[in-house]
Amino acid sequence: MSRIVYVNGEYLPEEQAKVSVFDRGFLMADGVYEVTSVLGGKLIDFGGHMARLRRSLGELSMGNPLSDDDYLAAHRELVSRNGIENGMIYLQVTRGNPGDRDFAFPPEDTPQTVVMFTQEKDNLADNPAATTGWKVILTEDLRWSRRDIKTVQLLFPSLAKMEAKAAGADDAWLVEDGVITEGTSNNAYIVKDGTIITRQLSSDILHGITRAAVLRFAREAQMKVEERGFTPDEAKAADEAFVTSASAFVMPVVEIDGARIGEGKPGPVAQRLRDIYIEEMRKAAV
Amino acid sequence: MSRIVYVNGEYLPEEQAKVSVFDRGFLMADGVYEVTSVLGGKLIDFGGHMARLRRSLGELSMGNPLSDDDYLAAHRELVSRNGIENGMIYLQVTRGNPGDRDFAFPPEDTPQTVVMFTQEKDNLADNPAATTGWKVILTEDLRWSRRDIKTVQLLFPSLAKMEAKAAGADDAWLVEDGVITEGTSNNAYIVKDGTIITRQLSSDILHGITRAAVLRFAREAQMKVEERGFTPDEAKAADEAFVTSASAFVMPVVEIDGARIGEGKPGPVAQRLRDIYIEEMRKAAV
Repeated sequence: MSRIVYVNGEYLPEEQAKVSVFDRGFLMADGVYEVTSVLGGKLIDFGGHMARLRRSLGELSMGNPLSDDDYLAAHRELVSRNGIENGMIYLQVTRGNPGDRDFAFPPEDTPQTVVMFTQEKDNLADNPAATTGWKVILTEDLRWSRRDIKTVQLLFPSLAKMEAKAAGADDAWLVEDGVITEGTSNNAYIVKDGTIITRQLSSDILHGITRAAVLRFAREAQMKVEERGFTPDEAKAADEAFVTSASAFVMPVVEIDGARIGEGKPGPVAQRLRDIYIEEMRKAAV
Repeated sequence: MSRIVYVNGEYLPEEQAKVSVFDRGFLMADGVYEVTSVLGGKLIDFGGHMARLRRSLGELSMGNPLSDDDYLAAHRELVSRNGIENGMIYLQVTRGNPGDRDFAFPPEDTPQTVVMFTQEKDNLADNPAATTGWKVILTEDLRWSRRDIKTVQLLFPSLAKMEAKAAGADDAWLVEDGVITEGTSNNAYIVKDGTIITRQLSSDILHGITRAAVLRFAREAQMKVEERGFTPDEAKAADEAFVTSASAFVMPVVEIDGARIGEGKPGPVAQRLRDIYIEEMRKAAV
């Protein structure tokens, strides 16, 4: 059976899920996205993703074509129609199809494009990678300056991911002015002497929805958190390292640019945060 | 009559010209493009655009799905079917549709996506804007670091164009580390004491096809050319300013961030280069 995909209010077999070649998402990367995880058929931190979507759209002077309730209904419809027990729902909103190509924005009444689709991933919560941990490489961060807006300008993260794969690693941590910004599609953390260190929010990094939840849980569990940049040398000398994202949750990192982190296996802080995150998020899922 | 658009070997009415929502051009801005002008039904500097397309694809480890002859035949077919006397042909090549979303590249045998369409513009050569000149504003350059690759990551240039429009200007010149890089979709030049000054080629700017031709013609006409960065202050104190692009050709700039350039009207160097460029390019058109 074909996966059923949402395109502008219609539920279509994936082979028929298309957008115009004049869509600004295709011609100009003029679109934003969110990825919401599904555990046990329910949506994880959906409210957080809706809040960030509104922020991304606002920063780009783009309208929001649907209400939160409509997005929620469509997400649930896709979960149901595709029988998703565990996985992700991808949502993309673009400035729409003005019928031609122009650097200038189209008139405000141009209908925007909304696309949603599911990705099934049975072992999302009991991901075997979480028991062995990721290896990451370091590479220079060449992205544009507004990484706080979750746009579809993902070419550089994709190139960095391929560089990591070629080096036998799972992901790349990006370095700018000698300080780590984040991973290709996740926020980066180290743990030193019991303190969790992760870069402070700014336009230099994505404002991770999972990051916000994990830091809240860490503080509630009386863990010490420092929000500041850290260097590659500091990272390599850390006791633990991990990343967070909406689909990886909390993922231990056991090697950075060939340097073994701690004992080279997932550390207790990352494992505990992963357990807390999954447990709390399951409780609050909608 | 509908415009006829090329999509992966088919010639379709524009309303039917679509790509999959899973196309990497739509999901990840994983695509490159070229715009070739048409004058008198013939293609301007087509070989230059093919050479740059190959370079862009190569820099991204992307294949080239068609031969130059096939691109040329499709361009001519579109000119003919749409009765284009003067205008542009837009060409976009993406890494294709892998059938799902993943930061990692799809297998190399994944068919790439090729889209081409025409834009009619009757007064391309006798553009009235060339007789009055453009006003530009200055704004910070927030783009990614590989502007030498002509990718569809055009969100920032689009935002800068809108900032210019809001300020009553025609375009924005982008400034990085106190030096002008280029315009939103064109290369930037000033003229001082008879010397043409434009930023040297590097990954900081687009390697303009029109730039290469115009500098060649300038040198052939014994004009002095300096390829180096210039500051906003230097630009505002220049005798002349102009931009070049495949569709604007040579376009005089008469105001920069509110400062009148020279006498506030198109200068003789820009006008002469525009005349030479159009004359020579018409002769060499295919």
